[in-house]
Amino acid sequence: MKQTTSQQKEIILTGDRATGPLHLGHYVGSLKQRIQLQHIHEQTILVADMQGLTDNAHTPKKVSENILNVVADYLAVGIDPLKTTICLQSKLPALAELSMFYSNLVTISRLERNPTVKSEIQSKAFNRSVPAGFLTYPISQAADITAFNATLIPVGDDQLPMLEQTNEIVRKINSLAGKPILNECRALLSNAPRLPSTDGKNKMSKTMGNTINLGASEKDIRTAVKSMYTDPNHLRVEDPGQVEGNVVFTYLDAFHPDTNYITELKKQYQQGGLGDGTTKKILEDCLQTLISPIRERRSIYLDDKAQLIDILKRGSAIADQKTQQVLFDVKEVFGLNLF
Amino acid sequence: MKQTTSQQKEIILTGDRATGPLHLGHYVGSLKQRIQLQHIHEQTILVADMQGLTDNAHTPKKVSENILNVVADYLAVGIDPLKTTICLQSKLPALAELSMFYSNLVTISRLERNPTVKSEIQSKAFNRSVPAGFLTYPISQAADITAFNATLIPVGDDQLPMLEQTNEIVRKINSLAGKPILNECRALLSNAPRLPSTDGKNKMSKTMGNTINLGASEKDIRTAVKSMYTDPNHLRVEDPGQVEGNVVFTYLDAFHPDTNYITELKKQYQQGGLGDGTTKKILEDCLQTLISPIRERRSIYLDDKAQLIDILKRGSAIADQKTQQVLFDVKEVFGLNLF
Repeated sequence: MKQTTSQQKEIILTGDRATGPLHLGHYVGSLKQRIQLQHIHEQTILVADMQGLTDNAHTPKKVSENILNVVADYLAVGIDPLKTTICLQSKLPALAELSMFYSNLVTISRLERNPTVKSEIQSKAFNRSVPAGFLTYPISQAADITAFNATLIPVGDDQLPMLEQTNEIVRKINSLAGKPILNECRALLSNAPRLPSTDGKNKMSKTMGNTINLGASEKDIRTAVKSMYTDPNHLRVEDPGQVEGNVVFTYLDAFHPDTNYITELKKQYQQGGLGDGTTKKILEDCLQTLISPIRERRSIYLDDKAQLIDILKRGSAIADQKTQQVLFDVKEVFGLNLF
Repeated sequence: MKQTTSQQKEIILTGDRATGPLHLGHYVGSLKQRIQLQHIHEQTILVADMQGLTDNAHTPKKVSENILNVVADYLAVGIDPLKTTICLQSKLPALAELSMFYSNLVTISRLERNPTVKSEIQSKAFNRSVPAGFLTYPISQAADITAFNATLIPVGDDQLPMLEQTNEIVRKINSLAGKPILNECRALLSNAPRLPSTDGKNKMSKTMGNTINLGASEKDIRTAVKSMYTDPNHLRVEDPGQVEGNVVFTYLDAFHPDTNYITELKKQYQQGGLGDGTTKKILEDCLQTLISPIRERRSIYLDDKAQLIDILKRGSAIADQKTQQVLFDVKEVFGLNLF
């Protein structure tokens, strides 16, 4: 008997720019979700080296040296290469070829109006010297998504304009084809709130030293938690403290398994009588427990680079086949499958 | 004994947008030169279907339906596929991939300053709705040139800014590599003056009906020559006529094999006593003689599409191999040859 109630299998495309090892922000923001999604849907993770180069072309090692780190991060947290296709963007020529086709269907002014790109250009202080590859990366992202004919894209809400841009291209191609060739995609918005940096102020970044990487050592974790931003007005243990904006509590909310216990702790902190040293110790223990096995697995994976490369190679071969099929369909629309 | 005086073999890349059949302007402007160059140098001709789409993405048949026409034109005028590699741009994924790499090294404002692109955008009245693929086509052209490591590019002087842009990219890649990976290219400027349209006013274009195609019928040629712009003040045969700006004489200069005879004709026309009917008849005879065998060969080639496709397929296979090698070298610069 057919199971009519079973959930429709979605095609999921997700990925990370390979510009640094992954950290706890990735863990709560996307990795945990991916570990679950791989059991339900057809999931591909793209290690986005080409996109990483759009603002790092003059320091390419920042990208090339992080590719295997990112793959090791995936495996260490429990992404299963037999369930999830893990592939390397630069190994998929169809993505570049689709980008070329799509770039004729999107105007420069449309790209300049894209709110995500706009704010990223501002934050990177490119001004007028924005690289062409950076302004046009929504096109390349549309190529990535459509090349897998993905239907569901896990994103933060700041990325919604990218999906809109993708669907505009999908509709143009389908209209040129006179039939549906490409799928429109929907966003899978994460319900996890964005994890703040340990300093509570800036965006997480390796250079700011305000992240906790998945490969962080015991000492790294201790140092990071000790320097964490709490309530600057909470000077003595007996003073009432503030929980909102207190990074230690945000992390406890995100990572501590016992939510009742954390609710109790918060009450106590707000009433006074609970020192930052104590809450930080609780958080540190919790993070050490979480990260220790990840770090261990990560290090074992990184000791066997040949295996990591093999996983990426197999995943890329699968992805190449899928994306070549879509490229063929799109080239058909333009009448270019002569031979 | 080694011939030390022999000319250094250059790598030549040239090509045409596949947006219409080729005409007499192409013949004097580039085809005649290519027929000679193929005996001396290593010449590749790119049938630029992807570039044709940069401003025809919404009317793709304008491109796809002209690919084989252009190949037939090449063969009909005497380009020998055993001496010249004739290949199809869309069949060379390395070109799209190189474009992606290069687009991170070129800023949007640099593209907007490119005089060739600037004037083309103006003439096409794109305004702010210029497609991304059109603004960035100098990058794609740099990919074409460097993918073959071409050293010599036959161009009109309006195209010099494109080569400048290419060489900027070459220098950036070589500087990142720390050694010369890519060749800088030089222009091979044609000494043939630009052929005017038959109406003497507008740019040659199929839609204006002011060109003479290489496949033009006897009647097409007669009609075109009859309607040619001459000297509007030359009303009676006995009046002195003007030779400058007189399209019939410009074409006689370009195509008539007997230059002494044309010099005589011009004198007579300037003195008065030579009618436009006579000069047009001389030009028509000359063009019928030139085009008739080209038209015949062209039609034979077009009757055997499978052969044309085979020629393009073989050429593209050779070109694919060459361009993949350059792509490998460029990926090496970015540290991306993991497997």
